[in-house]
Amino acid sequence: MSLEKRFTEHFSKIKGYEEAIALLYWDLRTGAPKKGVELRSETIGTLSAEVFSLSTSDEFGELLSSLEAETANLDPFICRSVEEARKEYNLSKKVPPEEYKKFVVLKSKAESVWETAKENSDFPLFLPYLEDLVSATKKMVDYWGEKNGSVYNTLLDQYEPGMTTEILDSVFGKLRERIVPLVQKIAASPNKPETAFLYEHFPKQAQRDFSREMLAQLGYDFNAGRLDETVHPFMISINRQDIRVTTKYDESDFRTAVFGTIHEGGHAMYEQNLGNALAGLPIETGASMGMHESQSLFCENFIGRSEYFWQENFDLLKQYAPDQFKNVQLLDYVRAINESKPSLIRIEADELSYALHIMVRYELEKGLFNGELQVSDLPQLWNDKYEEYLGIRPTNDAEGVLQDVHWAGASFGYFPSYALGYMYAAQFKQAMLKDVPNYDELLVKRNIQPVRDWLTTNIHHYGAFKKPMDILKDVTGEGLNPDYLANYLEEKYTKIYQLKE
Amino acid sequence: MSLEKRFTEHFSKIKGYEEAIALLYWDLRTGAPKKGVELRSETIGTLSAEVFSLSTSDEFGELLSSLEAETANLDPFICRSVEEARKEYNLSKKVPPEEYKKFVVLKSKAESVWETAKENSDFPLFLPYLEDLVSATKKMVDYWGEKNGSVYNTLLDQYEPGMTTEILDSVFGKLRERIVPLVQKIAASPNKPETAFLYEHFPKQAQRDFSREMLAQLGYDFNAGRLDETVHPFMISINRQDIRVTTKYDESDFRTAVFGTIHEGGHAMYEQNLGNALAGLPIETGASMGMHESQSLFCENFIGRSEYFWQENFDLLKQYAPDQFKNVQLLDYVRAINESKPSLIRIEADELSYALHIMVRYELEKGLFNGELQVSDLPQLWNDKYEEYLGIRPTNDAEGVLQDVHWAGASFGYFPSYALGYMYAAQFKQAMLKDVPNYDELLVKRNIQPVRDWLTTNIHHYGAFKKPMDILKDVTGEGLNPDYLANYLEEKYTKIYQLKE
Repeated sequence: MSLEKRFTEHFSKIKGYEEAIALLYWDLRTGAPKKGVELRSETIGTLSAEVFSLSTSDEFGELLSSLEAETANLDPFICRSVEEARKEYNLSKKVPPEEYKKFVVLKSKAESVWETAKENSDFPLFLPYLEDLVSATKKMVDYWGEKNGSVYNTLLDQYEPGMTTEILDSVFGKLRERIVPLVQKIAASPNKPETAFLYEHFPKQAQRDFSREMLAQLGYDFNAGRLDETVHPFMISINRQDIRVTTKYDESDFRTAVFGTIHEGGHAMYEQNLGNALAGLPIETGASMGMHESQSLFCENFIGRSEYFWQENFDLLKQYAPDQFKNVQLLDYVRAINESKPSLIRIEADELSYALHIMVRYELEKGLFNGELQVSDLPQLWNDKYEEYLGIRPTNDAEGVLQDVHWAGASFGYFPSYALGYMYAAQFKQAMLKDVPNYDELLVKRNIQPVRDWLTTNIHHYGAFKKPMDILKDVTGEGLNPDYLANYLEEKYTKIYQLKE
Repeated sequence: MSLEKRFTEHFSKIKGYEEAIALLYWDLRTGAPKKGVELRSETIGTLSAEVFSLSTSDEFGELLSSLEAETANLDPFICRSVEEARKEYNLSKKVPPEEYKKFVVLKSKAESVWETAKENSDFPLFLPYLEDLVSATKKMVDYWGEKNGSVYNTLLDQYEPGMTTEILDSVFGKLRERIVPLVQKIAASPNKPETAFLYEHFPKQAQRDFSREMLAQLGYDFNAGRLDETVHPFMISINRQDIRVTTKYDESDFRTAVFGTIHEGGHAMYEQNLGNALAGLPIETGASMGMHESQSLFCENFIGRSEYFWQENFDLLKQYAPDQFKNVQLLDYVRAINESKPSLIRIEADELSYALHIMVRYELEKGLFNGELQVSDLPQLWNDKYEEYLGIRPTNDAEGVLQDVHWAGASFGYFPSYALGYMYAAQFKQAMLKDVPNYDELLVKRNIQPVRDWLTTNIHHYGAFKKPMDILKDVTGEGLNPDYLANYLEEKYTKIYQLKE
């Protein structure tokens, strides 16, 4: 058997296991009976261990080395896949198994302690675990080897290949300089949208049907996926022809389901449009976490929150909730769904203030790993930064530093990807206008296909064959540039809040 | 690690794989998007191959031998599990892999040819495949080694340990002698139940809610299972705390869902009540296919079709479909749901004529394997036997010999289990009355728990620790005896059809 064939067969086996694991997880979230959960978790553990052992076997390591010796003759997709597989292989193999196991146990313990700590707003309870997590993560980086000159850059690179604090400091700085004044102007504006009608009772079944309409408009293929309900919405790839979306229905705020579905629909659009050449390979996935987020945010904000998109769709929405919207004008509706109000909780933030939440976390993470601050400093610094950037101050740690689970899972370096997604999306939108100048008109006509085709050709199609920074460069002709997002936000919110220029 | 520990760890791994396979299958039936089916099938294949290799590895064979050398010192549940594992091991290992693969391919091909043949009522198309299936199955038996003196007995024993043609000839003969005259009397009876009201429109959602009520009354634990919709109803064990049931909703015949759900609920009752001592072992399952069917049929017929069960439940049913039943009296309802009418199609048969359908198939299978008849004789013989036993004759092979998929999958020896389930159930009912004399009254009160407890203590609890014939003997004090089923049917149908004694 040829080396390439051995490689693809190996991954087709791994993909099979991953399909099973993904479905076991999806089922757990969408309706598995609660008594079966314990055994289910063990089963997920059994299969995950199998994937781990397939991905790190000595035999596989030798196969990778043989392939690396012939890169010149390899199919380019295989070649890039070997590179990715090697990266994963090294991450797993360089850590002694007993250290790795200790790290997994620590994370699992810390997550359950974090739950209690958040419930009781008790940071001191979580503190020693967070300290251990930071030092254990530093130790992991010792094993892996530092990348791009610092421990924290090594972590950033795992989620967003090529991303560094040098880049982030610069783009976040510029962005903050333009967002903070905007947030302040909005707070001072007398022209606030009327939003009471948003919170009227909207029955779940009708929300579900309307959400399906939204997915259909995005071009979501229901023959290669399905929509279900979960506590936290997500998109999951079961197999390449089975890309599922979940959403949450809040009967006193239909926006949760509608914009949540459009957001996850954006992730699904990415996965449903990956090129056939990637089939079965490890690069058959999004280019990075930030690139994936750019697609969901593109759909949610640049399509879903656009006034043009609602020009016809508002009438459609009225068919699903006639009483709720009967006295509401289109413009008032658009203003309401674009309301911006600083909040303490990241996952409830609007698109204007979202990046500020990320910056708080980024600066604290960076400080922790560069040794500039201690875990015990976090609550105070957190609250100060919220006051500085968003103009509001948490009254306790549950709504402050303890709000997110990420640190309990040692996902340091992950948060920035969310903000990158916003910036990528705005930059793509600008580039798209050159090829699709009638963008707004297409949204009015609810003809998203040319928009989707553009995204597919330029982004989705490549999967992880190209790296995120290369995609950005190839598509927009420049590197990461926060001005596009800032311009978009200024223009949009000036209009919504009738701000003076 | 002790031998016992190695054995249980091995099976806990296998159970993990089996959970994944079961869920992948369940999902395929309950709503997986159609484009994902092809990859899904490959994934099921990948994991099944893994289970096969875990169950047949030389290392595992050696472990079995070591355990067999110490049976005297083994925990009895492990001891019995080793016996079962050895049986499976031998079945798989004795056939040369290339022969086994050829057999699998033949079955898969034959199933797709059978579909076309049934669609076009074209037996000659299927004939060469059926001939190959019979001879390939004989060859398998050559590898396995004959059991109980004949090829066909070997096959029977796989589904129903200890079952032989000697036993079946005798019990089927006795049963037929009493059922056939009863069928004839009913056909001649002028007192036929009025059934038109059964076919009125009963909305799916209401059927679903009522079906859930039925499961709840049976003691089905919804925290350890769920009810979904599929084209063909089934029960599936995902893990020991996750036993799922599916049903089918026919809006012009609510009986499909209600009795289908109760039937599958009986299977689920068995699986939900397996003893804790069996946890994770290969004997954590029903004692046999026939024993499993006895539990589903007990629920469906001895509970679900009893006049006592409907005494209160008919009012409940009326709440779900008030118009449909408003002019119907309880007695007329009970007579209608117990209508008996010979039909050509097994899966539509009522409890009286069902066993006759099985006898036709049994006699033909036995003849094929004992060399007394040729595959080409089947259509003619099939039709003759239907005329003889049921008084009706198929007009084509689609509604005759081609109706069931079982033979295309080489499941020879499987059909008799269905009829055994009826006989076991009737025999258990009689034994139960000694311990639960107020059985009818409990049904009226909709207090099924004492009935369920009796079944659990005597049957469910043991799983496959005891063999089916031993369970029967221990519970009823005698061997298989068709008189109980015959008595029950005579008494019941004499009443329903007001037959003269």
